[in-house]
Amino acid sequence: MSHQPLNVIFHPRSIAVVGASAAATNLHTRMFLDPLLEFGYPGQIYPVNPKFQEVSGLKAYPNLRDIPGPVDHVISLVPAAATPQLLTDCVAKQVKAIQLFTAGFVETGEADGIRLQKELVRIARSGGVRLLGPNCVGIYCPGSRISYCADFPKQAGRVAFIAQSGGYTYLAVRMAAGRGVYFGKVTSYGNAADVNEADLMRFMANDPETDIITAYIEGTTDGQRFLKVLTEAAAKKPVIIIKKGRTEAGRRGTSSHTGALAGDDQVWDTALRQAGAVRVEDVDELVDMLVTFSFMPVPKGRKVAVVGAGGGASVRAAEECEAGGLKLPALPDALRAEINRYFSLAGSMLRNPVDILAEPLGDAAWVPVLNTLEGWPEADMILWQMSPDMEPVRTEEFVRVVVDMRRGMVRSFSNVRKPKALVVHTLETPSGLDEMVALREECRERGVAFYPSVYRAALAISRYIGYHERR
Amino acid sequence: MSHQPLNVIFHPRSIAVVGASAAATNLHTRMFLDPLLEFGYPGQIYPVNPKFQEVSGLKAYPNLRDIPGPVDHVISLVPAAATPQLLTDCVAKQVKAIQLFTAGFVETGEADGIRLQKELVRIARSGGVRLLGPNCVGIYCPGSRISYCADFPKQAGRVAFIAQSGGYTYLAVRMAAGRGVYFGKVTSYGNAADVNEADLMRFMANDPETDIITAYIEGTTDGQRFLKVLTEAAAKKPVIIIKKGRTEAGRRGTSSHTGALAGDDQVWDTALRQAGAVRVEDVDELVDMLVTFSFMPVPKGRKVAVVGAGGGASVRAAEECEAGGLKLPALPDALRAEINRYFSLAGSMLRNPVDILAEPLGDAAWVPVLNTLEGWPEADMILWQMSPDMEPVRTEEFVRVVVDMRRGMVRSFSNVRKPKALVVHTLETPSGLDEMVALREECRERGVAFYPSVYRAALAISRYIGYHERR
Repeated sequence: MSHQPLNVIFHPRSIAVVGASAAATNLHTRMFLDPLLEFGYPGQIYPVNPKFQEVSGLKAYPNLRDIPGPVDHVISLVPAAATPQLLTDCVAKQVKAIQLFTAGFVETGEADGIRLQKELVRIARSGGVRLLGPNCVGIYCPGSRISYCADFPKQAGRVAFIAQSGGYTYLAVRMAAGRGVYFGKVTSYGNAADVNEADLMRFMANDPETDIITAYIEGTTDGQRFLKVLTEAAAKKPVIIIKKGRTEAGRRGTSSHTGALAGDDQVWDTALRQAGAVRVEDVDELVDMLVTFSFMPVPKGRKVAVVGAGGGASVRAAEECEAGGLKLPALPDALRAEINRYFSLAGSMLRNPVDILAEPLGDAAWVPVLNTLEGWPEADMILWQMSPDMEPVRTEEFVRVVVDMRRGMVRSFSNVRKPKALVVHTLETPSGLDEMVALREECRERGVAFYPSVYRAALAISRYIGYHERR
Repeated sequence: MSHQPLNVIFHPRSIAVVGASAAATNLHTRMFLDPLLEFGYPGQIYPVNPKFQEVSGLKAYPNLRDIPGPVDHVISLVPAAATPQLLTDCVAKQVKAIQLFTAGFVETGEADGIRLQKELVRIARSGGVRLLGPNCVGIYCPGSRISYCADFPKQAGRVAFIAQSGGYTYLAVRMAAGRGVYFGKVTSYGNAADVNEADLMRFMANDPETDIITAYIEGTTDGQRFLKVLTEAAAKKPVIIIKKGRTEAGRRGTSSHTGALAGDDQVWDTALRQAGAVRVEDVDELVDMLVTFSFMPVPKGRKVAVVGAGGGASVRAAEECEAGGLKLPALPDALRAEINRYFSLAGSMLRNPVDILAEPLGDAAWVPVLNTLEGWPEADMILWQMSPDMEPVRTEEFVRVVVDMRRGMVRSFSNVRKPKALVVHTLETPSGLDEMVALREECRERGVAFYPSVYRAALAISRYIGYHERR
């Protein structure tokens, strides 16, 4: 095993990008060099490529060994066949860690690729170099101003993501940022030839900068060790896991993606639960859980008061709440009468879901309704649902007025002390999408949990309650 | 029973909007009068309101009886208490049909409301007036230039929608239009006091302008009759149904929404299947089915070739295909080698899903890959999946170039003769949303089936195959 502690991968003092190109259209250079410049990485950045004198305004070196100063971290963009030599150079240069975007190893399922990956690990370990990947996108650590994506947030959060797939990290980081959740350490580890999911899980469990651990796992080579480490981690902080390989096709996919053995899904399901992790199906549910953990006090129970306009939307909300694991107590007559004082709209059902079109009345009627629901002891939480594309009038002028009013209502909603969430449901039209983005932003600024459907809200909140019940 | 045939509700020669207001902020007038003007309804439009001389540039009348010419159709925006008098006026004026947006009847669950609704039906039937609702938004029939929504498409399609909920019609029409499917006759029937789901189902089954019938049903008052009519309709054309009231809370909701008895869901499920209808969970699945019926030749079987970039995205696509009911045969070595001629990208899995980043290569490599997949006899269809928010570089300039290239690739894709579909999956960022909208538009123009997730595509296509297998 290597002697370098894993910490080195998050705090390099200098980075060499081997295979970076001066060609403007070179996708790999855009992927790995541009983000370091965009993030203002404070250490030295060394492009390495014998074909160029300069890359992106930085002096380029023909070979890693030609770099004058020390190199802590190497990003490999060279073809697989060139990687053993690069590893040898890394050892000579006393590099602490190398991350290989380069693919073409065990994931090909071919003997050459498998042999080549073993060779890389042998060289790396012989020289004490930590190896990330191959076939991975590497490290995003905004606190160290390191990123493999130029549009990732520069703001550092306290969530870690351990991901066998690079694509899932792009999606998760962007999706979470839109809802106010930020990552502190993201590691895409690909084929896990050296640094693997168990190493990273143990590291994040002990990392004082990490409050929540998330992971995307296709399979492991040492399931026993991973489950042991996972159990220890989950005892310390919430661990939320996407475990792929549920179907036969998915299992074949994981093997050709990262060479991972997905294993029997039922066994995995039980093991993950016993370890204390929260298993989710995909990245949307993962981000929903992060939003819930980040913004919602733990509800005392599963009973929810739902408020929002529309008969069909209310029927749907009721079904989706129950499908997600929440319960809807019936609103007592006294509270119904109280709400009726502020809304004498014909057609309002005033049960639960409380079907009121509060928007045209603004805060004057909205705040007393919120107060009434807050004072209802049967309701453990309040869920406000909206469906812009279900609304009858969506002219530009009308939407502008309504959105301004609703932003104000979100501010009032943010003062509710009970656990609460806003759902803006099912969007198809441009004006609906714009409205959703505006209200999501208002929620992000106010620290209000936001979800894109009642079902997803209910599922996340129900799992969140379940997590706390088991502890 | 009334003597007016149902056809009158779709072809009125004149419409009175009773309760229309000259106040610019009057939501109900915006909902019901503006769309008639926007659609250029060619018959006479009569606002009725004793408080105004003129409404929206049209002469207003104090009472329905004061209108000089004949009135075929009345839209009621007056309070519930005023409706018996209005119905009496309708009978006197020999109105053919009245549609009541007015609510406050059986859906309130209160004796007064129940009695009032019975009274309306009695008066209507005594004078041969058809009554739609109460508590409904009415008729959208672009062929007659009638709409209750200004932003609905003016283009008439050949799909009918029979909807107990008005909100669901707004959502369904807008969602379908974005994907190239247009409705010809939409009827929101609310409390179904006179015209009910069975009447409308029979009408649409015999309507030569309707090829596909869709419905949103919360419950019926005469389930036996509805199932009989449904069976007859489903024997003639595809019928796709959202049946709500699956959960206890949903059932309570339907009763307070439209006063409907939702009934036992398991019984409904079996009955709908036996009647030959396709049951879907919600409006997204309903529109997915319409897209499939509209644009996809019937695949010979459930085997799909999936193509698109990304390891994680491919694993997800494989799982979602199987979860939705499709199968992924493994790509034979010979075809793998053939595709490899056009793509020597390291890291490409070249199994199924075929993980290729074709975009930077444009049509030069894309068309031969499509030809290869088209020539693969094991593949009954081709599914192309994309996840913009999973992509590493999303700068404005880069996205512009990529989107242009992909629009061109959609044009090539539209020439594939095998059943095919495009999926643009999981969108969160503004640039991802823009790209989805651009590609969805390209699909709409080219008549290519478009879905927002692989799972939804697979589920709809699998149900579509099942529908044809059963016939």
